[in-house]
Amino acid sequence: MIQRIDHLGIAVRSIDQALGFYRDALGLTVDHIETIEEQKVKAAMLVVGESRLELMEPTDPAGAVGKFLETRGEGLQHVAIGVDDLEAALAQARERGARLIDEKPRVGAGGALVAFIHPKSSFGVLIELVQRGKGSVAHG
Amino acid sequence: MIQRIDHLGIAVRSIDQALGFYRDALGLTVDHIETIEEQKVKAAMLVVGESRLELMEPTDPAGAVGKFLETRGEGLQHVAIGVDDLEAALAQARERGARLIDEKPRVGAGGALVAFIHPKSSFGVLIELVQRGKGSVAHG
Repeated sequence: MIQRIDHLGIAVRSIDQALGFYRDALGLTVDHIETIEEQKVKAAMLVVGESRLELMEPTDPAGAVGKFLETRGEGLQHVAIGVDDLEAALAQARERGARLIDEKPRVGAGGALVAFIHPKSSFGVLIELVQRGKGSVAHG
Repeated sequence: MIQRIDHLGIAVRSIDQALGFYRDALGLTVDHIETIEEQKVKAAMLVVGESRLELMEPTDPAGAVGKFLETRGEGLQHVAIGVDDLEAALAQARERGARLIDEKPRVGAGGALVAFIHPKSSFGVLIELVQRGKGSVAHG
């Protein structure tokens, strides 16, 4: 079952500069900032109710976020939706004809199970499905 | 104060087709579908925790969503953030140098007070601030 918007991934060139808007002008609280080596990003997680905004600054221009910035510029890169059973959610999406980037759940940042759906299936929005352990929150 | 992600506005060519993914494959519940004349869209609101996804289909190609589809294609058009005091949120954003599309709150769909922040200030993300009456939820 769908639980919530887990987080929104926003590609930025500089977290420091982006915090000038998201933290200082908008007033959001920074939960933490971390480097996620496997995704080649530094990420700042900001709290918005039950959701998070993830500001993602590339640590390597050849990574996915680095390439996104080069071709699309700064902006929203993915929408992560929290589910309680990722295997079941993927099975249902596949059965209804959705094109999956990840056929099976894989382990993402913070130990969560994640899988991406291809934006061709989701009308231009890159969707990440996330299953977290009880009590845990967005961690990159 | 920031309360939650109120809704995500997703521009689509056809709500009927998009529901094949968002309702049928992803499993979201449709709260309601309505035509919002002043925005020149038909909108389907789907429930995701305390937030909504708003699928927006243009009723006129000359409207904002129609133009977005023509230049950018289908995908996420805006992120709406719920606040408890829109006047105060706008004053803080202005004071910290953010560029506002709406200098003052205006009445949006469902009677909510809304104001947009220019994506040049918010690092490529078009942000709508929304203040709703007590107990009301996203209504377009």
